[in-house]
Amino acid sequence: MFKIKERDLAGRIGVLETRHGKIETPYIFPVIDIVRQEIDVKDIFSLGFNAVITNSYLLKKRGFKGDVHKIFGDIYPVVMTDSGAYQLLEYGEVDVTNKEIIEYQKEINSDIAVILDIPTGDSLDRKFAEWSVSETLRRAREAKKIIDKERIWVLPIQGGVHLDLVEKSASLSYKLDFPMYALGSPTRLLESYRYDIIVDMVVAARKHIPFTRPLHLFGAGHPMMMVYAVSLGVDFFDSASYILFARDDRYMTEYGTIRLSDLYYFPCSCPVCSKYDVQDLKEMNKRERTRLLALHNLYVIKKTMNRIKQAIKEGRLWEVLEEHSRKHPKLLNAYTVISKKYYRWLEKYTPETNTNWKAPLLFDKNSLKNPKIYRQYRFLKNLYSPPPLYKKLTIKPLTKKTLNDEKLAQENQTHIVYYDPIIGILPIELLRTYPLGHAVTPGMHDSISMKKSLLLIRKFLAKNAHKYDEIKIELCKDLERFLGTKNFSFLKSFKLVFIEC
Amino acid sequence: MFKIKERDLAGRIGVLETRHGKIETPYIFPVIDIVRQEIDVKDIFSLGFNAVITNSYLLKKRGFKGDVHKIFGDIYPVVMTDSGAYQLLEYGEVDVTNKEIIEYQKEINSDIAVILDIPTGDSLDRKFAEWSVSETLRRAREAKKIIDKERIWVLPIQGGVHLDLVEKSASLSYKLDFPMYALGSPTRLLESYRYDIIVDMVVAARKHIPFTRPLHLFGAGHPMMMVYAVSLGVDFFDSASYILFARDDRYMTEYGTIRLSDLYYFPCSCPVCSKYDVQDLKEMNKRERTRLLALHNLYVIKKTMNRIKQAIKEGRLWEVLEEHSRKHPKLLNAYTVISKKYYRWLEKYTPETNTNWKAPLLFDKNSLKNPKIYRQYRFLKNLYSPPPLYKKLTIKPLTKKTLNDEKLAQENQTHIVYYDPIIGILPIELLRTYPLGHAVTPGMHDSISMKKSLLLIRKFLAKNAHKYDEIKIELCKDLERFLGTKNFSFLKSFKLVFIEC
Repeated sequence: MFKIKERDLAGRIGVLETRHGKIETPYIFPVIDIVRQEIDVKDIFSLGFNAVITNSYLLKKRGFKGDVHKIFGDIYPVVMTDSGAYQLLEYGEVDVTNKEIIEYQKEINSDIAVILDIPTGDSLDRKFAEWSVSETLRRAREAKKIIDKERIWVLPIQGGVHLDLVEKSASLSYKLDFPMYALGSPTRLLESYRYDIIVDMVVAARKHIPFTRPLHLFGAGHPMMMVYAVSLGVDFFDSASYILFARDDRYMTEYGTIRLSDLYYFPCSCPVCSKYDVQDLKEMNKRERTRLLALHNLYVIKKTMNRIKQAIKEGRLWEVLEEHSRKHPKLLNAYTVISKKYYRWLEKYTPETNTNWKAPLLFDKNSLKNPKIYRQYRFLKNLYSPPPLYKKLTIKPLTKKTLNDEKLAQENQTHIVYYDPIIGILPIELLRTYPLGHAVTPGMHDSISMKKSLLLIRKFLAKNAHKYDEIKIELCKDLERFLGTKNFSFLKSFKLVFIEC
Repeated sequence: MFKIKERDLAGRIGVLETRHGKIETPYIFPVIDIVRQEIDVKDIFSLGFNAVITNSYLLKKRGFKGDVHKIFGDIYPVVMTDSGAYQLLEYGEVDVTNKEIIEYQKEINSDIAVILDIPTGDSLDRKFAEWSVSETLRRAREAKKIIDKERIWVLPIQGGVHLDLVEKSASLSYKLDFPMYALGSPTRLLESYRYDIIVDMVVAARKHIPFTRPLHLFGAGHPMMMVYAVSLGVDFFDSASYILFARDDRYMTEYGTIRLSDLYYFPCSCPVCSKYDVQDLKEMNKRERTRLLALHNLYVIKKTMNRIKQAIKEGRLWEVLEEHSRKHPKLLNAYTVISKKYYRWLEKYTPETNTNWKAPLLFDKNSLKNPKIYRQYRFLKNLYSPPPLYKKLTIKPLTKKTLNDEKLAQENQTHIVYYDPIIGILPIELLRTYPLGHAVTPGMHDSISMKKSLLLIRKFLAKNAHKYDEIKIELCKDLERFLGTKNFSFLKSFKLVFIEC
């Protein structure tokens, strides 16, 4: 039902098959409010969204009967229905039971349906959080007896900010064997930019459910955060924010939401922003402005998803995490948490290599936490041993690599080992191998990374110097001031040269 | 002729008035090749480009006579003409003299015209570089006698990578009093991603010509680099790359150029990328594909300029430099050079404040080089003295700021001084002032910045503790492990509390 086509980090491009069509993931379901929708669903479809989410609880309250797809006229989208849990979170209660809403979702022929879970929300009340987990699981067990195979049933994982409860909820949910999982709504955390906590929550959930099952992150509709969630294995999102923000004259960007009154130039080239200028929109009637802002917001979401998918294809998802970490200080927190706590976990899911992958981009020492890089870096730092065929060794800066080096290496029996302030040590035989041999680095040296280069050169020599008869060390002049008299004194003999860099 | 409307760093939004219309800067002139142009100039105009550049040397070679504006039919753009210097750089010689091409540009009624300079290019040959500077200046003096006031005459500054020559060329050019200056073509440096050198070149030129005169950067047509150039005071660019790349099936993004064959999803929402998918473009006939790729490339350029202008309005140009520094390792070099060498120079041009300015975003210690921030940070670190009305002092983490603090401060005569791992020390009376009081920081602590916070707290106390009768220090628990027993031992008495953060 869910096929994974491409992978990078724990993120993937997948295809979910439903009775009314396939959805390519990562995907965001636009939320359709059947009562009030300023934007025509046809317009949403023309942007390439072929699946929507709407609320079965509200449909039931309004007495809707028949096939939910018919609401959308002659376009026949994939329809996911939510269960009313959001209303439970917002208003504290709903007048429907789990069984009733499950039966109703069957009646209206939803393609992807959700049991009536109890959202933990961002509650700090542990007792409530525990109850929301156990009651959701009880309802899941109840559901197991009545759900069908016609549609994809979603089991939400609860626990909120209580990570141990998220883990417990995920493990027990896994045992209940649902075809699709969701992570209970971190809406409030998103609103307060606590992306660091959301990262923790997603990992706590993802690590206990099978990698092959899709995961939906409820209520996360802003493009700021999406790449972090996708890289940790989230496949689906839903968004009402495109229209809620539009109603409030708010304009989405990947780095935050801007009030229309604060905009002077559209930093976007979508069809809306290309056709109109800011003043046009400000002077337009409210309804048309709302429609156009909603369209713009959807274009931003779509573009963000495409960027993420292209990055997965290119093996550059980590680089997009880095780039987004400088779009807002709170996004840097998400990146920091991933690069401190989860890079080893991500390494497990990161494929070894792929012919589509492009040269990795390295910015600073955090870039070494890119799991593809970390693998080889760790090997070079700790396990590497030079091939036994060389009598001579030359250490030189990576930026001074020449086309001649490989030829020289063969002819003179000289082993060339490059150093770089970020990569560390790179032996010539790895120069053509992915990823470090292909890596693009700034090449500029700051004092911390310069000292680190020296340490790594020393470490390499301490371990391997005895394997060579002659050692030449070519260092950039900048390094001279970091060199104590005893730096290489442990070597029997060596030639030290300072070169212009 | 050139009016500056808004400023941030050394960048500005300006208006250049010509006889055929106004150009709002920063602006990029699309290069129009009159012989071969796969894209209709009307399409270029519909994107909002109202001024173009074409080559007067090539027009002359083809025997074109009359008003150059007529080439463009009933749309009547502002027309800048280049002089043939590019051909000189590419092919080594042109069969036209400076005087001839100046007269010709008058004849064809160009709006912005360039003397026949000698481009230094990226030549490392100092003798040649010196000659290119002096010969360009000789030609400028020659030009002074024959140029008119009907059009805006541009004097290119030469010197290339020889920064002292750029400075000399700029100073002498300034004395010749041209209405507009340009910086000689760093095309090769752009192609080899040497953005660090271009930053040096732009500053070397900009600092010797009046701030009120517009500066054009020749041959810089890629959106990657633009924000760095604009922030250093570049107003104009020209680009042939939109069409050259398109002919070569290359797709521009702000983070680099991608071959169409390497694209799977369009990471863009421009009208081209929204109407077609990648496969459509790949299967299309070459001419139509070139046209569409050229349009896409122009949309990216336009969007980038809009983003930059919006950032100038918001006072967030530094933040865009930071963001772009993570789009490519070589862009990080441009940012590094600016934040190391030129932040004091930028401070001179950075306005004090502006009602449109938004809260500054701080990411790490480099963010303190943002001239707006640096001003206040330097003051707080070195010159700040607490107001004399308080008997008590409480130091607490900025993240623990409460709405009650100000009230408490007044009632209890307690002075509250916040600390933050990036901002350092922030006294409560500055909490509502721009910029540090409004700054958004990650709020998460890493060990280096934690130690730095402690140092700044100590420094503040060493200087000011004697002014208070009672001192309370509230530190996040994370800081405990960095605290030696003697940290505050120089204080007569104090209360130290560790709190959850």
